[in-house]
Amino acid sequence: MSLLPSKVRVVEVGPRDGLQNQSIQVPTATKLAWIGRLARAGLREIEVTSFVRPDRIPQLADAVEVAAALPEIEGTLYSALVPNQRGLKSARSAGIDRIALFTAASETFCQKNINASIAESIERFRVLLHSVPDEKLWVRAYVSTCFGCPYEGVISPDAVVAVCRDLLALGIDELAISDTIGVATPADIDRVLDALSTLPTLDVPKQVALHLHDTRGTALVNVYAALERGISIFDAAAGGLGGCPYAPGASGNLATEDLIYLLDGLGIETGVDLAALTESSLWFERELGTPLPGRVLGAARGS
Amino acid sequence: MSLLPSKVRVVEVGPRDGLQNQSIQVPTATKLAWIGRLARAGLREIEVTSFVRPDRIPQLADAVEVAAALPEIEGTLYSALVPNQRGLKSARSAGIDRIALFTAASETFCQKNINASIAESIERFRVLLHSVPDEKLWVRAYVSTCFGCPYEGVISPDAVVAVCRDLLALGIDELAISDTIGVATPADIDRVLDALSTLPTLDVPKQVALHLHDTRGTALVNVYAALERGISIFDAAAGGLGGCPYAPGASGNLATEDLIYLLDGLGIETGVDLAALTESSLWFERELGTPLPGRVLGAARGS
Repeated sequence: MSLLPSKVRVVEVGPRDGLQNQSIQVPTATKLAWIGRLARAGLREIEVTSFVRPDRIPQLADAVEVAAALPEIEGTLYSALVPNQRGLKSARSAGIDRIALFTAASETFCQKNINASIAESIERFRVLLHSVPDEKLWVRAYVSTCFGCPYEGVISPDAVVAVCRDLLALGIDELAISDTIGVATPADIDRVLDALSTLPTLDVPKQVALHLHDTRGTALVNVYAALERGISIFDAAAGGLGGCPYAPGASGNLATEDLIYLLDGLGIETGVDLAALTESSLWFERELGTPLPGRVLGAARGS
Repeated sequence: MSLLPSKVRVVEVGPRDGLQNQSIQVPTATKLAWIGRLARAGLREIEVTSFVRPDRIPQLADAVEVAAALPEIEGTLYSALVPNQRGLKSARSAGIDRIALFTAASETFCQKNINASIAESIERFRVLLHSVPDEKLWVRAYVSTCFGCPYEGVISPDAVVAVCRDLLALGIDELAISDTIGVATPADIDRVLDALSTLPTLDVPKQVALHLHDTRGTALVNVYAALERGISIFDAAAGGLGGCPYAPGASGNLATEDLIYLLDGLGIETGVDLAALTESSLWFERELGTPLPGRVLGAARGS
């Protein structure tokens, strides 16, 4: 075992990336109660919603209400996805100062997902960020389909580097390198991290987060391979909720419980109480009325 | 990424370890057709049944019929579990010359599972192997609960070493170090492999197989950690079938498709054709009438 990071930042994306792919409409009060449980279980970074057009993702139509009523829990940082200036304005009004933008390493995926070429998405971000020059915003950018695309197949690490270079030039704080359709193995993780390491403007351990989907069960092994490379920021969704509505065949996010179980086993500090988190997900799946796919959760449920 | 083995031996245990935990009685002809498909997909080592008392595991009551009618496919090695001399005699009569024995690193698990202490199990094996002194038998021993026990909790690596030392003294060819309840993380894999490395009579890369259950989603990350340590023999069950009837909370074996997907991604040779294997499991789950839990299989099914 190589020297692994002693501490990992876990970014909980269930309330946004998880819920946006659920057909079930979760009441705002339930979402807020869930977010409170997640925060009290020790999750310090939670992406709570997306300020998208309600007709696009009705599950998140209550973004303003959610953002305005977030539980105040010491040390918890909330963020939200914003697709455009209108979304940014709503997010700011609701007190959100950590935002996430969304683009892709695959042209076709980018076009189908946000109706823009990759270059156009970068230009949109430039305009959007220029619209708030004096405000202190923390900005993450999702780079989706970094390891494979449902339309284009294999994605070259060079394509990942190209979009990341442009994002860094905009002053983006964090890159969420995403395996949107869950096809990566550690060899791919290595290839992409090798390629990203060539970017002189990127501080890999501080700025690269991995956003992994567990479609083929490889999310945890990819986390481990990334840990061995010094990566210490990982996204996960409580219970393994979610997926991606624009990616055929993309099933759930890496389950936060599974990630914490691995990190606990490796003696890596996360601040998350696995028992409390599991309890929260057992409660949430009862609220949803459908079991969540996380493996540790399944073991806890006795299934 | 450390230097990984270029080649891995995959031991398919679905027909034995998988089926013994299914409540469904699979017809003998279906089992034989399945075994043929597995072999034709390139699985070269298949544990086909267990010569246990039919009242103990009725699902495998047709052990003699299965063993006697195995498809002859060039290069395929078939093995069977034998619990006692009567089972060995039946296996030998049916032409099986690769056998597997079963013990544990946990006293309580051993007692509950085979109604013997660990020392008694070793003594039984000694008598059993002495009963066929002139025959060329290849013998594997399962050492279950090496990483945790449903009754005793944490198992010390010293306990694993102790039983392995005794097994090696009997001339056992291969040790299947088993995470029966799927609790291990790579730190545990390292601890147990470190401990086993102290055994002067053990050739770790040639004699240690890992038998992992995917209860908490950690089987693949444990495979990867073991590959980094030079382990190159892994058990898996097609589709992730199975579990362990004597281990509460133990769900499926590592799915062979998931293992092959990882190894293919890492450029490690297995001889297995993943598409053919997946096709076989899709066929088999239709025969069973219930979906199998493997992740790659699920992605192929589009679920």
